[in-house]
Amino acid sequence: MQCWQGARLATLAGDRGWGLIDDGALLVDDAGRLCWVGPRAEVPAADAVVDLGGALVTPGLVDCHTHLVYGGNRANEFEMRLHGATYAEIAQAGGGIKSTVAATRAASEADLLTAARRRVRALMAEGVTTVEVKSGYGLDAATEARMLRVARALAHEPLQVRTTYLAAHALPPEATSADAYVDAVCAWLPELHQAGLVDAVDAFCEHIAFSPAQVARVFDAARALGLPVKLHAEQLSDQGGAALAARYGALSCDHLEFLSADGVAALAAAGTVAVLLPGAYYALRETQLPPLQALRDAGVPLALATDHNPGSSPTLSPLLMLNMACVLFRMTPEEALRGMTVNGARALGLRDRGQLVAGQRADFCVWDVGHPRELAASFGHNPLIHRVYEGRIQGGA
Amino acid sequence: MQCWQGARLATLAGDRGWGLIDDGALLVDDAGRLCWVGPRAEVPAADAVVDLGGALVTPGLVDCHTHLVYGGNRANEFEMRLHGATYAEIAQAGGGIKSTVAATRAASEADLLTAARRRVRALMAEGVTTVEVKSGYGLDAATEARMLRVARALAHEPLQVRTTYLAAHALPPEATSADAYVDAVCAWLPELHQAGLVDAVDAFCEHIAFSPAQVARVFDAARALGLPVKLHAEQLSDQGGAALAARYGALSCDHLEFLSADGVAALAAAGTVAVLLPGAYYALRETQLPPLQALRDAGVPLALATDHNPGSSPTLSPLLMLNMACVLFRMTPEEALRGMTVNGARALGLRDRGQLVAGQRADFCVWDVGHPRELAASFGHNPLIHRVYEGRIQGGA
Ligand SMILES: [Zn+2]
Ligand SMILES: [Zn+2]
Repeated sequence: MQCWQGARLATLAGDRGWGLIDDGALLVDDAGRLCWVGPRAEVPAADAVVDLGGALVTPGLVDCHTHLVYGGNRANEFEMRLHGATYAEIAQAGGGIKSTVAATRAASEADLLTAARRRVRALMAEGVTTVEVKSGYGLDAATEARMLRVARALAHEPLQVRTTYLAAHALPPEATSADAYVDAVCAWLPELHQAGLVDAVDAFCEHIAFSPAQVARVFDAARALGLPVKLHAEQLSDQGGAALAARYGALSCDHLEFLSADGVAALAAAGTVAVLLPGAYYALRETQLPPLQALRDAGVPLALATDHNPGSSPTLSPLLMLNMACVLFRMTPEEALRGMTVNGARALGLRDRGQLVAGQRADFCVWDVGHPRELAASFGHNPLIHRVYEGRIQGGA
Repeated sequence: MQCWQGARLATLAGDRGWGLIDDGALLVDDAGRLCWVGPRAEVPAADAVVDLGGALVTPGLVDCHTHLVYGGNRANEFEMRLHGATYAEIAQAGGGIKSTVAATRAASEADLLTAARRRVRALMAEGVTTVEVKSGYGLDAATEARMLRVARALAHEPLQVRTTYLAAHALPPEATSADAYVDAVCAWLPELHQAGLVDAVDAFCEHIAFSPAQVARVFDAARALGLPVKLHAEQLSDQGGAALAARYGALSCDHLEFLSADGVAALAAAGTVAVLLPGAYYALRETQLPPLQALRDAGVPLALATDHNPGSSPTLSPLLMLNMACVLFRMTPEEALRGMTVNGARALGLRDRGQLVAGQRADFCVWDVGHPRELAASFGHNPLIHRVYEGRIQGGA
């Protein structure tokens, strides 16, 4: 049993508040779990002591929505747009998600892993201890499987990885109809699940992607295997996707800028987490804000994620997302940090992390700041001292 | 003489274009200067060779506008605002610039240096090789001098530091009148200059700060000592500050969201650099964009900086500023990188850095990207491999 002390703890215990313990201590057992959290004056005896020199400790960060595995990058499109090219011109030049699908299909599993590993290490360097990774740039059986295998392989970094099957992300160029492609998406799932590659199933419900009826078929396929679902919903328009997902008891609905009052009520009733993604809002220069106050009033848990992807959110900074959630969405610093810890975990169906309380995983971050609000108040700055994973200082910083 | 090769160079030579050399080489002499830049196939013989393994090389970054030296932080105000406090309530609670002035006056020189050193190391970790640092949180003779001494001491990091005297930043709480305070600002300058602490003189021209007539008096004091001037101008309203500064041949005018057509013409005629500060625009949630197209059309050189300060721009990421300049201001990636290199140097009156051409300082960055546009297209990501300062890999990454 190891004692970590000499730190201010932001435990996030309970449903609200920072849960600050000014001169706190954490006991970690040999299984890498927290077995005691409280004031140092009351800490039981331990075999070894680590002094943290007055730093701040928070739970490890949970990035619950990423598209980390892909080939290529889309900086050329970014530059073209700033030189005046229209989206149509970029599409004609082979751009958009199509270019990422082509690059991902062309990439070997080793190359995908090398690139994804570099990205996940950047997340770890800012304190991420659990990350979700979606497929969805393969759009064929072999490449979707390859993406999911690469995601699983990232768990050696060491961090916890949850994989999400998102073949219903876009229509592949060779598809003859959306309905036929959805048939294929449903048909590929059982084998991937059997291979242990799928923790949840996701889809993109939007006028430029899949209809609620098509998403329902994907969700039925998930339900038949006992897999939980998530949804990219109401990002560009109100499709009623959140209400649909809530009927399937979705873990989360993500984006939600165009969420209606009915959608808010449906999420609240189902206990579904709202995952807000300020990076995509920022990069796409959106103006429609997610209905934050309505979500708060209804008691919907709010999570936050990088949505890392090469097109609409090429960021690897969970800390910047804390700041953007506050500056752009007017979340409070506490809501933002809960969104990247306990509520991020909940969006993945995980209840064993995200707070510094006895019984949880000993995944935590040691920061060179005096108060947790400082993590959200600055932007483009990383004060991480140590990333502690299962009770050991590992990787990242 | 040392040869750096095996890299793609973004030289930024000339007035436009990336100046790409795909398989390039740099020769560095013993004085830490570039003595030859070109294709590897043509490089003269050298004493030693460093292979860069296919990375990208750009000039070292120049952050030409920062307020890096101060006591305390203002995260509490950030949090208060997000819990609904008004600016008036925050001011009543002792907040705003007043709180930073109080914390800076109370801090020892050693404490100010420790805090500023940590900040400057974060800038260096993203490739900054030259930084400008302003005074302006002392607002009394002793503390302004202390801030400038701390700024000078940062040059040991190693990086180049340019200091700017900004006592005309705000009215100190004890001032009886703005005019009397401006008298004092002018009176303190000669001794600070004599002590070698001042490279340029700046002021904040705004309805909440100093009038053009008061700024002119500060500029007259600078001119009497042969010191160049700069100005915080047209950030919140059009005060005609840019035209005033141009009459004094200012090195730069900074912020410029409310710059008029006359102001643009004045900058162009004087050869004054326009320094755009997207971090403050973002954090203050401004909506008035600087007149980018008019500045381009007039041929005004565009620079870019972090404006690091504890209130309106608590960022330590020049790379994030490249992205924000593109996303928020619609600068091109090339304009953004020129703004953080050759034009940033020009905003400090420096012509010996910011491009990879023979005769310039051998301050450069080695990046893990394929094309310089990637530096601006992602946000919250730092692909720096090496920071090279005077021809040696030093500090930072
Ligand atoms: Zn997504
Ligand atoms: Zn400033």
